[in-house]
Amino acid sequence: MPSAVKRVFQNIGELATATGSTAVAGKAQGELLMLHNAWLLEEDGVIAATGTGKAPYADDSVDCRGKLVTAGLVDCHTHLVFGGWREYELAMKLAGKSYLEILAAGGGILSTVRETRRASEDALFEKTRGLFFEMLVNGTTAVEIKSGYGLDLETEKKQLRVVRRLKEEYHDVAATFLGAHAFPEGMDHEAYVNWLCEEAIPAIAEDGLADFCDAFCDDGVFTAEQSERILLAGKRCGMIPKLHADEIREIGGTQVAARVGAISCDHLSETGEDGIKALRDGGVIAVMLPATSFYLKKPYGNFRGMIDAGVPVAVATDMNPGSSPNLSLPFAMTAGCLYGQITPSEMLTAATINGAAAIGMAEKLGTLEAGKQADLVIWDTENLDRLIYRYGTNRAVAVFKRGVRMIGKENLWNV
Amino acid sequence: MPSAVKRVFQNIGELATATGSTAVAGKAQGELLMLHNAWLLEEDGVIAATGTGKAPYADDSVDCRGKLVTAGLVDCHTHLVFGGWREYELAMKLAGKSYLEILAAGGGILSTVRETRRASEDALFEKTRGLFFEMLVNGTTAVEIKSGYGLDLETEKKQLRVVRRLKEEYHDVAATFLGAHAFPEGMDHEAYVNWLCEEAIPAIAEDGLADFCDAFCDDGVFTAEQSERILLAGKRCGMIPKLHADEIREIGGTQVAARVGAISCDHLSETGEDGIKALRDGGVIAVMLPATSFYLKKPYGNFRGMIDAGVPVAVATDMNPGSSPNLSLPFAMTAGCLYGQITPSEMLTAATINGAAAIGMAEKLGTLEAGKQADLVIWDTENLDRLIYRYGTNRAVAVFKRGVRMIGKENLWNV
Repeated sequence: MPSAVKRVFQNIGELATATGSTAVAGKAQGELLMLHNAWLLEEDGVIAATGTGKAPYADDSVDCRGKLVTAGLVDCHTHLVFGGWREYELAMKLAGKSYLEILAAGGGILSTVRETRRASEDALFEKTRGLFFEMLVNGTTAVEIKSGYGLDLETEKKQLRVVRRLKEEYHDVAATFLGAHAFPEGMDHEAYVNWLCEEAIPAIAEDGLADFCDAFCDDGVFTAEQSERILLAGKRCGMIPKLHADEIREIGGTQVAARVGAISCDHLSETGEDGIKALRDGGVIAVMLPATSFYLKKPYGNFRGMIDAGVPVAVATDMNPGSSPNLSLPFAMTAGCLYGQITPSEMLTAATINGAAAIGMAEKLGTLEAGKQADLVIWDTENLDRLIYRYGTNRAVAVFKRGVRMIGKENLWNV
Repeated sequence: MPSAVKRVFQNIGELATATGSTAVAGKAQGELLMLHNAWLLEEDGVIAATGTGKAPYADDSVDCRGKLVTAGLVDCHTHLVFGGWREYELAMKLAGKSYLEILAAGGGILSTVRETRRASEDALFEKTRGLFFEMLVNGTTAVEIKSGYGLDLETEKKQLRVVRRLKEEYHDVAATFLGAHAFPEGMDHEAYVNWLCEEAIPAIAEDGLADFCDAFCDDGVFTAEQSERILLAGKRCGMIPKLHADEIREIGGTQVAARVGAISCDHLSETGEDGIKALRDGGVIAVMLPATSFYLKKPYGNFRGMIDAGVPVAVATDMNPGSSPNLSLPFAMTAGCLYGQITPSEMLTAATINGAAAIGMAEKLGTLEAGKQADLVIWDTENLDRLIYRYGTNRAVAVFKRGVRMIGKENLWNV
């Protein structure tokens, strides 16, 4: 057996990382390990050691030119598999059309459902793969992807097979069944919930297509009681619960998430003190989606209150063709810092280890520590504060996944 | 003499452009020329013709793969020459420090003045050149740059020489003298205004270093009366007036801009009906800076009201290390559409021909029409609406300046 190939990343200006292999909550969310004039030793795709000062010898080396290095970002809430786009809704909205006029013109989530049903699995895979590559280019190395644009078994399975194919290629891709994303046109709500619990969830589970089960618990979508039934049905089939809650109004979603033992509760832009308490007591990770708030011109949510109360906060793009057509997690990080009033250190924890914990990957990635995967980004900036501050253009110059250079030329700086 | 080299850009899915060689105002601001299945013929860096259907023969061709092509973007308001960065202010602010605590820690505009005074001209040039290249990568091909971090003659001239060197390399770079950006520490305000009018402006003019003269007319900075004196002094020395106004509060800046015949009045986030009327009656271009509003969490201004009243609206990044550390004009365009409630078509006019008009370049660039420079961008997106909608990551795959490929590989799509 050949000996391991060792590579050293040297001349790191600032190595910034959370520590540990579980979600970080409360004050500690802002406490990073910060090494200056640092190095990182990688061996066969795994981090062997980090340190400061003179770097150890290795077979190969990468000169980080005094720049910032962090763990690869984890985007723990996306809807990356969908047919079509919906830019025409934005243009109509900006031209003064009402929501009803947009619906009448065939817009809204059900238009994406139609397009996703119509698309072939191969076409969806090629599209999703392109979007994932765009995320990689911008520093994201692990991702969660939800179904939910089928609302029938055939299409939901097709979406989840696309996620599985992406996972075969890029490894750290989590799959979430979100049949409870909307109600199919003209279908009785209770009948749809029954079908989800009794037929769809068992069938998805039988094919091993989903790690997580999710529901959109909000005003006008799934009630708290319906959401709880769906998540419990998923749990019985081995899917870990997640929940969309409090995006429009608080209707008890945080309490459902706590009761069913959800790993995360997402959106939370309208969550008040009781909801924060429920998440904390239930040990639920809060996944905040600031890019969605920016795009919809809606409240960003109480990031500060959650961290101060001891709730672990993660951040994600929510990438989807209706309410968040943005693939850049760094943009979401900046928007979240500015409008959620949290620090760059707290935000790095949110975008790495807490995101990883929200999709069950915290043991293997999300920090730059010995034993973790060598998923890392070299940023063309000098420190973490400046990464958040210098938003708008891409600062990732090289992205490594399990030690493999995914993005960035041999001559890193000649991009 | 060798015959001209002709190149055809073919297979353009959507060619979107404003028309004309002056600023576009009112309803027409939203009326673009939109060609589908189009081509563009370039000859020695100049646009020879555009059309649809079968492309003409040429020596060289570029396959645009059915994507969107627009004129290169024009960023008509930036502060691109400065020493240092101020990311530490963001981190302090987010950690709950007050403005006074940040000042006490050495922050604020005067810290940039100190750093800019300290930096060598060569160091400033290398930095500015890097920032300009980052703008090019994101689709901007012409730019205005202000001085104003010197507040003494030596440093203001040094900044403007950096702008001149950039112009020698990239051609379409406008220089603005902004000695009236702030008051130097401990100096009497009237004495500083006198010095600007009587010594600084004539000295800058003698060296031919500035095309425009600007002042920051707002609460706590330069009064309307002081701003008017400064702009008139500049005008006497051949500098075209511009003005920062109504960012904090209306103190009569729009009226000053109209009275002195300013080419543009910029910021305008607090401008009311009277100010809009003054701009319209004075024929002044309104330069809106939505990225600054996003970063400072301040109002975006009444884009809609200005366009409806017949004021030509332009958009810019305001790139600077204090209030707008963003180099992406496409991000500013999306933020401006969403929060200024204007359409993608109106916004393209704002970011091309109206930006060009605001810096006196509308005759040679800003539209894709025969006779204009071949400054153009191939975007990895199918149409203009989608460019605005798919924000957050860079969509520019190839950027041409006077027909020269500045950004984008030979195999355009393998980036």
